[in-house]
Amino acid sequence: MYSFKNDYSEGAHENILKAMVNSNLEQTSGYGEDTYTEIAKKLLKEKIEDGTADIHFFVGGTQVNLTAISAFLRPHEAAVAAEIGHINVHETGAIEATGHKVVAMKAQDGKLTPALIEEALDRHTDEHMVKPKLVYISNSTEIGTHYNLKELEGLSEFCKAHGLILFMDGARLGSALTAHDNEITLADCARLTDAFYIGGTKNGALMGEALVITKEELKADFRFHIKQKGALLAKGRLLAIQFIELFKEDLFFDLAAHANQMANQLAEGIRAAGYSFLTESVTNQVFPIFPDVLLEQLKEEFDFSFWERKDETHTVIRLVTSWATKPEEVERFIAFINQ
Amino acid sequence: MYSFKNDYSEGAHENILKAMVNSNLEQTSGYGEDTYTEIAKKLLKEKIEDGTADIHFFVGGTQVNLTAISAFLRPHEAAVAAEIGHINVHETGAIEATGHKVVAMKAQDGKLTPALIEEALDRHTDEHMVKPKLVYISNSTEIGTHYNLKELEGLSEFCKAHGLILFMDGARLGSALTAHDNEITLADCARLTDAFYIGGTKNGALMGEALVITKEELKADFRFHIKQKGALLAKGRLLAIQFIELFKEDLFFDLAAHANQMANQLAEGIRAAGYSFLTESVTNQVFPIFPDVLLEQLKEEFDFSFWERKDETHTVIRLVTSWATKPEEVERFIAFINQ
Amino acid sequence: MYSFKNDYSEGAHENILKAMVNSNLEQTSGYGEDTYTEIAKKLLKEKIEDGTADIHFFVGGTQVNLTAISAFLRPHEAAVAAEIGHINVHETGAIEATGHKVVAMKAQDGKLTPALIEEALDRHTDEHMVKPKLVYISNSTEIGTHYNLKELEGLSEFCKAHGLILFMDGARLGSALTAHDNEITLADCARLTDAFYIGGTKNGALMGEALVITKEELKADFRFHIKQKGALLAKGRLLAIQFIELFKEDLFFDLAAHANQMANQLAEGIRAAGYSFLTESVTNQVFPIFPDVLLEQLKEEFDFSFWERKDETHTVIRLVTSWATKPEEVERFIAFINQ
Amino acid sequence: MYSFKNDYSEGAHENILKAMVNSNLEQTSGYGEDTYTEIAKKLLKEKIEDGTADIHFFVGGTQVNLTAISAFLRPHEAAVAAEIGHINVHETGAIEATGHKVVAMKAQDGKLTPALIEEALDRHTDEHMVKPKLVYISNSTEIGTHYNLKELEGLSEFCKAHGLILFMDGARLGSALTAHDNEITLADCARLTDAFYIGGTKNGALMGEALVITKEELKADFRFHIKQKGALLAKGRLLAIQFIELFKEDLFFDLAAHANQMANQLAEGIRAAGYSFLTESVTNQVFPIFPDVLLEQLKEEFDFSFWERKDETHTVIRLVTSWATKPEEVERFIAFINQ
Repeated sequence: MYSFKNDYSEGAHENILKAMVNSNLEQTSGYGEDTYTEIAKKLLKEKIEDGTADIHFFVGGTQVNLTAISAFLRPHEAAVAAEIGHINVHETGAIEATGHKVVAMKAQDGKLTPALIEEALDRHTDEHMVKPKLVYISNSTEIGTHYNLKELEGLSEFCKAHGLILFMDGARLGSALTAHDNEITLADCARLTDAFYIGGTKNGALMGEALVITKEELKADFRFHIKQKGALLAKGRLLAIQFIELFKEDLFFDLAAHANQMANQLAEGIRAAGYSFLTESVTNQVFPIFPDVLLEQLKEEFDFSFWERKDETHTVIRLVTSWATKPEEVERFIAFINQ
Repeated sequence: MYSFKNDYSEGAHENILKAMVNSNLEQTSGYGEDTYTEIAKKLLKEKIEDGTADIHFFVGGTQVNLTAISAFLRPHEAAVAAEIGHINVHETGAIEATGHKVVAMKAQDGKLTPALIEEALDRHTDEHMVKPKLVYISNSTEIGTHYNLKELEGLSEFCKAHGLILFMDGARLGSALTAHDNEITLADCARLTDAFYIGGTKNGALMGEALVITKEELKADFRFHIKQKGALLAKGRLLAIQFIELFKEDLFFDLAAHANQMANQLAEGIRAAGYSFLTESVTNQVFPIFPDVLLEQLKEEFDFSFWERKDETHTVIRLVTSWATKPEEVERFIAFINQ
Repeated sequence: MYSFKNDYSEGAHENILKAMVNSNLEQTSGYGEDTYTEIAKKLLKEKIEDGTADIHFFVGGTQVNLTAISAFLRPHEAAVAAEIGHINVHETGAIEATGHKVVAMKAQDGKLTPALIEEALDRHTDEHMVKPKLVYISNSTEIGTHYNLKELEGLSEFCKAHGLILFMDGARLGSALTAHDNEITLADCARLTDAFYIGGTKNGALMGEALVITKEELKADFRFHIKQKGALLAKGRLLAIQFIELFKEDLFFDLAAHANQMANQLAEGIRAAGYSFLTESVTNQVFPIFPDVLLEQLKEEFDFSFWERKDETHTVIRLVTSWATKPEEVERFIAFINQ
Repeated sequence: MYSFKNDYSEGAHENILKAMVNSNLEQTSGYGEDTYTEIAKKLLKEKIEDGTADIHFFVGGTQVNLTAISAFLRPHEAAVAAEIGHINVHETGAIEATGHKVVAMKAQDGKLTPALIEEALDRHTDEHMVKPKLVYISNSTEIGTHYNLKELEGLSEFCKAHGLILFMDGARLGSALTAHDNEITLADCARLTDAFYIGGTKNGALMGEALVITKEELKADFRFHIKQKGALLAKGRLLAIQFIELFKEDLFFDLAAHANQMANQLAEGIRAAGYSFLTESVTNQVFPIFPDVLLEQLKEEFDFSFWERKDETHTVIRLVTSWATKPEEVERFIAFINQ
C-alpha cells in the first residue's frame, strides 16, 4: 500500500534531520530568541529581497492563519476567502473562534479575483454587516491551481486601492513557485502581499511555516499574538534550523519541483489512460475522475482521498505527491490503471 | 557561558532523535491517526493505570492549557489559579482570549488549597459574577514546589464535592514525580484529577505534551477543539514517537531524576556557601538569594533568570536544571560562588 | 413623507405607555427580580402552555440571538441558517464574535428544510470542520414568508433525530402567527422548538423580546450569560410591564393582525395595479417589483427600503407595516402608484 | 418597607416620561439615525465643550464597558482596573468574554493612581504577558468615593505619557460631579479622558448611558462594534429623548444633587447616632458599619445591601439614594436607628 493521500506522510529531508542532530546539545535561548532564528530570518529576508520584513516561525498552517488574521483585524472586520479556502472549511472555525466572520465567495478554480472581492465589498454596505478587510488567498490553492503574476498583481493593486490587507496562505507555496508555468518569485510574494507564509511542513520539513509580514502597521507587537495563541515554540530554533536547511541553498525549490514532477507524471499517465480531471493542476495535487469500479481495485494498492462524487458511476479523487514521492510508485500507479 | 536559564535550552535525548531518524521515511496517516500515536496512547494508559482515559498529544504547554480549559468551560465559567500560575501570568492572556476569567488567589508556595478555592467560591455568589468551575494547579509549580499525596487528595475531594474540574498543568510533572520526597504516581494523577498533562518539552523531548482526560464528560469531540486552536500537528507521529521513547522504559523518570539531582546539588552547594532561598524546592528549579555584587560576577560565566528583588542589595534568581545539565557545570557554579 | 421603512418607526401602544407611567414610582428589585417580571413570566407560560419553560426578557433581537446561541453551543459547534438569515447578514458578525461559525444555506423563500440541514450535516464530516449543532430559523422570515405547521413539525422531528437544537428567531413572530393562513400557535412554538423568542420591539412595545427556553439542558445558569453579554436590564420590570400589557389580553395578536392587514391591503393594491413581487408574503413585509421611474416619484412621498435590483429598469423594494400603520396612508400609497 | 438598595429601583423623572409620551407616534429612523439623537448629541457636545467628540447612546453600563473596551483594544492588550472595579467583579467576566484580561490592582478607596498603574506596567515586561493598554476608572467609584481634579489630571498626564487609553465609567457620574467638594466638570471629563460615559440609568432615566469618545483614533467604525455587541437599540430615539430632557436644562445635575443630599443626610444622621463608616463618601452611596442586632431590626423596615462583615458582631451595609429618594424616608431611617 503506497500513499498519495497527502504531502505530510513522511518526516523530513535528511539534511534537516542531520542539522537537528548536529545542533542537538547546544544551549540556545528559548522562544525564537536564538542565533539560529536570527540566521534563518536573515536568510529569508535575502530570499524575499526585503530587508525590512518581519519574519516569524510557526509549527503549522492553521496556527499561522488564526494568529495572523486575528492580529490583523479589529473585531468587526472580516476575511474574504474562496468558498473552498482552507480557513473557510478545514480549520474547524478557527477564524470564527477568534471572533471574525469569513465571507466566502464561490471562486472558479479556487482563486479569488478583484471582481469577486468587489462583489463582497458591495454586499457589505453599513454597520449592520461585517466589514470585509482582509483578503485570504492560498497559493497553490486547495485544488492545486496557482496564481500567475498578473493575477497576483491585480489582487495587490485592488487591495491597496480599497484599503484591504492581502494575506497569502503558502502552506503549498513551494509547489506554486515551481510549477512549470509559474512566473512568481518569493520576492514577488513579499512585494505584492501584506503578509504571506512559506510552508515547510508540506515541503520537506518535520514541521514549520515562516510568516513574512511586510506591511508596516501589521508588525507591531506580533510576538504577543503568537504567544497568546499558544504558538510560540519553546525550542524555537527547531523551526529555524529547518528553514536554514531549506533555503541556504535551493533545497526548498528542489523538493517542491520534485513533488510537481511526480504529480505531472501522474497526471500525464492518467490522461494518457483516457481519464479526465476536475481541474487542470500543474502543482502537486491532481484530481482525476475515475470510474467507481476502478477505484475499488485501486484502493487495495494505493491510499488517496475521496474528493467528491462526479456522477452515479464516477468519483473525483485527490492524489498528492511530495518531496518524498518515489518515481517507481508513480510508475506502478500508472501501470495499475492501464491494466 | 553555561546556561541555567531554563529546561528547554537543548534539543532532545539521543534515543528520541534516533527513533525519529529511523522512522523518518515511513508513510503514516496525518493528524495523530497513525500507528505510533496508537502505540503511545496504549503505553501511557498502562502507565497511568487507566485504560479508559483519552490521550491527546500537543506541541506545547500554553496550547494544552488554552485548548483544554476553553473546551471544558461554558462561557460564564472561570478558572481558579494561584496568582503565580502560568495561565495567570505567562501566557499573554491566552485563557482570557478564549473568553474566560482567571480568578487568581494568593497562594503560599504557589500551591492552591481547598481553603483558597473555597474563598474563591464564596466571593462569587450570583450571576453578576463569573462562576468558578475549573481549578488549575501546576505540579511542580512555577516556583519549584510540588504537591504531596495528601494535598492532591484534598484538592480532588474538594473539587468532586463542589462540582469543580481539577486540571493539572504538568509541564514539569517529571520533576515533581521524581522529587526525593514525592509520594505521587502517574496513576495518582489520573485518579485524582479530571485532566492533566505530562510534559515532554522540558524533560528530554524536542517538544510535546501528553494530555490525559479521565472525566467522561470532558472527552466528547475533543479533537475538534485541538484543530480549532491550531494545535493538531500534521505529522502527529512526531509527538507519539517521542512519548514512546520516554515511556517504553523509564527514560522519562530517569531524565527528570537527573535534573532534580543537579538542582539539589546546586542548592546544597549554595546553602553550604551560606546563602538562603526564596522557597524550599526539591525539584529542578532553585531560587537562591544572592548579593548583587556576586550576581555581577556570576553573570559573566553563567546564564540564569532574574526573579525578583529581595532588598536593596539582594536579588532572587532562578536556576533551572534539566535532563541535559552537565554535572561539571554544577560543580563549576558552586566553585565560582565559593571563590 | 410617510414611512413604510420598518416596524420600529413609532414608539409603543398607548396601553404600554400608560402601564409604565402608572408604575413609574414604585420601588422594585433590579435585574428582572421584581414582581412584574414574575407576573409576565407566569402569563407567558400560560400562553405557551408550558409551565416548566424558562423565560428571559431582553431589550433587542441581536442581543437574544448572540446570548442564546453562544450559551447553547460549545466552541466547535456551529449554527445552520438560511443565507438571508438575520444572524448571517445583519448582525455585524455577532455570532462569530462569540466564536461560532454560521453555516449558511441557500434557502428558497428564506426557509430552512430538513433536506437543507441534512446537506449541511453531510458536508461536515470530521473534526477538521465545525460541527453543526443549532438550527436557526426566523418566523416570519427576513423576506416575509412564514412556516406552516407541517414544516415546523418536520424541522422539529429532524432536529430531535439528529441531536440538533432548534432555535426560532421570533422578532416578527406576531406577524407570522396572525397571517391569514397560519396554523401555528405559541404553544406549538414552545412544543416544537428548543428555544424561541417573542418579539415585542416590532409589535407595539418600546423595546423587548421574550426568550422562551423549553429544552431542559439549555436552561442552566442562563442569567450568567445574559449578564455577561451586557443584556441584563437594570430596570428589568420595564420589559415585563410591556409583555404583561401585550399578553394579559390579546393585544399582541391584535397589533400583529393590524400590521398584516395593512400589508395585505398594500399587496392587493399593488397587484391590482399590475405589479408583481419578489416573494408571496402574507405577513407584514411586502416586496414589490417596481419600475425605477415609478420609484423616483414614490420616494418623494414615501420612505421604504431598497431590497435588490431586479433588472436594468426594475427594482425590488421592501415595504413594512406595523401595529401603528395608518390605513389612510396605505390607501394614499395605492392611489399614488395608480396615478 | 422602603428601599435604599440601589439607584435604579424606580422608573424615570416625569419630564422624561412626558417627552416619551409626547413623541410616541412620530415616525423616526431606527438605530439612532433620527433627529432626536442628533439633537441630543449636539446638546451633549455643548455641555462637554468639545464639538469634535463622538457620542453614542447605550441602554446599560456593562454594555458600554464591553463594547468600548473591546473596540479600543487589540487582542493582546489588557485593561487595568481597581480590584473592586465593576468590570473586574460585577460583569460576569464580560471583558474577558471579549478576549481581554483585566489587570486588577488593590486600590485605596477604589481609586487608581499613577503609581498603581505604573506598578501594573512594571509587572508586564514582555510578550509572555498581556500588555496593559487601557486604564479603567469609575467616577464615582463602586464605594462612593470620587476623583478630584488633581487626581484626574494626574491620571490623564500619566496615561498620555505612557500611551495608555484613559476610560471613565460614569454610571454614577452625576453623583460625582455634584458632590459638595467636587471640582470636575463634564468638560474636564472630556478633556482629561479618552472616552467616558454619562450614566442616565442611575440618575433619572428609564435606561441609558451616553458614551463620549474624544480620542480621534478610537472613533473609527464605532457603530459596527455597537451593533455587533447587540447594543444598537432599534428605537434609538428613546435614549436620545431622555438625554435631551436631562441636559436641556440642568435636570441631570439637580437629580444627582438630590441623591447626594439624601445620602449626606443619611450619613450625618448615622454619624450623629454614633456609628462609623467603611469609607468617607459624599456621593449617593453610604457604607455604615452597624451592629448585627440593629441590622436584624432594620431589615424589617428597610431594604439595603449587605456589603461585608466587619467583625464578629458588626457588618458593613450599603445604602444607596437616588433622584427619587423621599426625604421623609431618610428621616424615618435616622429616627429608627436612634430608637
